Amino acid sequence: MKANSHGADIYSASIDAGIDENLIIDFSSNINPLGIPESVKHAIVSSVENACRYPDINSRELTSKLSVHEKVPREWIFCSNGAAEAIFRIVLHLKPKKALLTAPTFSEYEQALKTVDTEIEYYNLTEESEFKITESIFDSIKSDTDIVFICNPNNPTGQITDKAMMKKIIELCFENNTAVVIDECFLDFVSDKEKYSVNDLMSQYKNLIILKAFTKIYAIPGIRLGYCLCSDVNLTEGFKNSGPPWNVSTFAQAAGVVALEEKEYVKDSVRYVCKQREYLIEELKKLNIKSYESYANYIFLKIDRDINFQSKLLDKGILIRSCSNYRGLSDKYYRIAVKSEYDNRLLIAKLKEIMGTI
Amino acid sequence: MKANSHGADIYSASIDAGIDENLIIDFSSNINPLGIPESVKHAIVSSVENACRYPDINSRELTSKLSVHEKVPREWIFCSNGAAEAIFRIVLHLKPKKALLTAPTFSEYEQALKTVDTEIEYYNLTEESEFKITESIFDSIKSDTDIVFICNPNNPTGQITDKAMMKKIIELCFENNTAVVIDECFLDFVSDKEKYSVNDLMSQYKNLIILKAFTKIYAIPGIRLGYCLCSDVNLTEGFKNSGPPWNVSTFAQAAGVVALEEKEYVKDSVRYVCKQREYLIEELKKLNIKSYESYANYIFLKIDRDINFQSKLLDKGILIRSCSNYRGLSDKYYRIAVKSEYDNRLLIAKLKEIMGTI
Repeated sequence: MKANSHGADIYSASIDAGIDENLIIDFSSNINPLGIPESVKHAIVSSVENACRYPDINSRELTSKLSVHEKVPREWIFCSNGAAEAIFRIVLHLKPKKALLTAPTFSEYEQALKTVDTEIEYYNLTEESEFKITESIFDSIKSDTDIVFICNPNNPTGQITDKAMMKKIIELCFENNTAVVIDECFLDFVSDKEKYSVNDLMSQYKNLIILKAFTKIYAIPGIRLGYCLCSDVNLTEGFKNSGPPWNVSTFAQAAGVVALEEKEYVKDSVRYVCKQREYLIEELKKLNIKSYESYANYIFLKIDRDINFQSKLLDKGILIRSCSNYRGLSDKYYRIAVKSEYDNRLLIAKLKEIMGTI
Repeated sequence: MKANSHGADIYSASIDAGIDENLIIDFSSNINPLGIPESVKHAIVSSVENACRYPDINSRELTSKLSVHEKVPREWIFCSNGAAEAIFRIVLHLKPKKALLTAPTFSEYEQALKTVDTEIEYYNLTEESEFKITESIFDSIKSDTDIVFICNPNNPTGQITDKAMMKKIIELCFENNTAVVIDECFLDFVSDKEKYSVNDLMSQYKNLIILKAFTKIYAIPGIRLGYCLCSDVNLTEGFKNSGPPWNVSTFAQAAGVVALEEKEYVKDSVRYVCKQREYLIEELKKLNIKSYESYANYIFLKIDRDINFQSKLLDKGILIRSCSNYRGLSDKYYRIAVKSEYDNRLLIAKLKEIMGTI
């Protein structure tokens, strides 16, 4: 199977493996296993007739709801066609000359920075420190660093950076006049997320931009809805002008509005994912597969033996994410999503078959 | 009412006028009055369950259908989140130093060029030549012009440029190493569009990029689906990398696939719009309102008398597009969509009331 630059490409995987895409169990994308809330499905069906109008160019209703949800003024919010679009707009608006990224991390930061020819430096997360950010990152944030991206919890490692450390990073960036983008897209799966979110630091630090998505927690990657938050309204206005108008579809706006009411669903989802993640980690341990502590709805693995792990699983109808194309990782690393109990048990069963044969 | 940078903002208009948005008849956006084909609505409803997966990052099925529809190889096609997104990606990828735009024209070319600090020169369309492009444009395409945008039919004037003239422009650009973007988004409403489309020139001219949208002809602005075509596959690949992946939602892909089967609906729509456009032009003439010849599903007007025309109509629940914020136009110019027979008759009735009182 050829390397994909992202997970979640069951379409390529199915072509490569000659398996119908509907028969592949996708452990490569990290989506809430409880699925789309019924209210969201209903909102989409109810919006079909509205699709003959342009969507609200300012996503007013959604922004109002988000303002309450995030406890920030409406002017601090920019809604986007998935969080990925916000990344590209932030970068295009700021046109940073020099950026700092952790390695490994979500590849879209680098992709976006390439569009404006930013020079990129890397803070290498190492196996020795279990891929955690340590104080050594302070030396990497230099006076000429224009932007820093930190994914928290990090993708694909699942590691979280605590708030004290995060605050120091943001403060150092603030003194440096460096923009800092904290990607909290997976933080919704962390049970005590308030302990980690830097949301309450925004009013103090105008250089802080927080990325959020509806994609993962509401299981709606197909709808494309994300947003970013920043207390510098010149920046949010700039992000708006750095891309096409009407970027958020009628369906995305309608889905977002009702999704924000789904507070019990979110709590249930977090509990479910925690329980299933524990199950998977325990079973992986029994199979002598090295897994890292995870705070997100995915688990980062290292398989030291030289087997084509991903291919072997795909032959059994299971797609996982090889991390070989992440900067700083090798083909020994993989990422698996935490899925439904049924799917997770199936994965473990298939893993037992594979590990038994080698 | 405050100036909107676009038509189609019934949400702002309803707030400004204190009228429920559902009670406003929107003549400011140019959408097929026959509405969304039933098959497209059905495709969206059927796709709801698929929204829990990432959309196909390569829009494979849609691209295959478009390849047949446009009679071009799949590699020439880049699908986007509305045609507007394609404009921004083209510009970000090419980063032109100097651009030529007609004035007036669709404002997004200029918005997009601003994101990469392009110097913009204008070819002024004049009232004397009925806002038509004439041979004088050749003098405006200079050796250092990096990109030219031409909207055909032009928005907001409705004027069309014939193919012989278009070919000369493309050829001159080709010799100059200048990219030329021909926006054919409204060409689907032209009954003999083959006479005008430059689609068949693409294989000959690698500098030619054609913009297309599903928005107008299939009445789905809320879904966000457009595309561009270019025979230089390095360019289409570049456009793909100049923005976020998964930019085309599950619903947009599903809608596009079935919309392309709606050939009779498109024919009926063109016939309907032509007939209604004739009706409107005739009635406007009776009211002594100057209207320009139009090839699109909208009509460009000039009201010489100093009345707040747009405001007066909005008070009667009708939103039209003031063209005062188009470069090269004044507040005497307006654009009205060609809508359903019922709506058009209502517009004429309201116009009679207004014109009778001044």
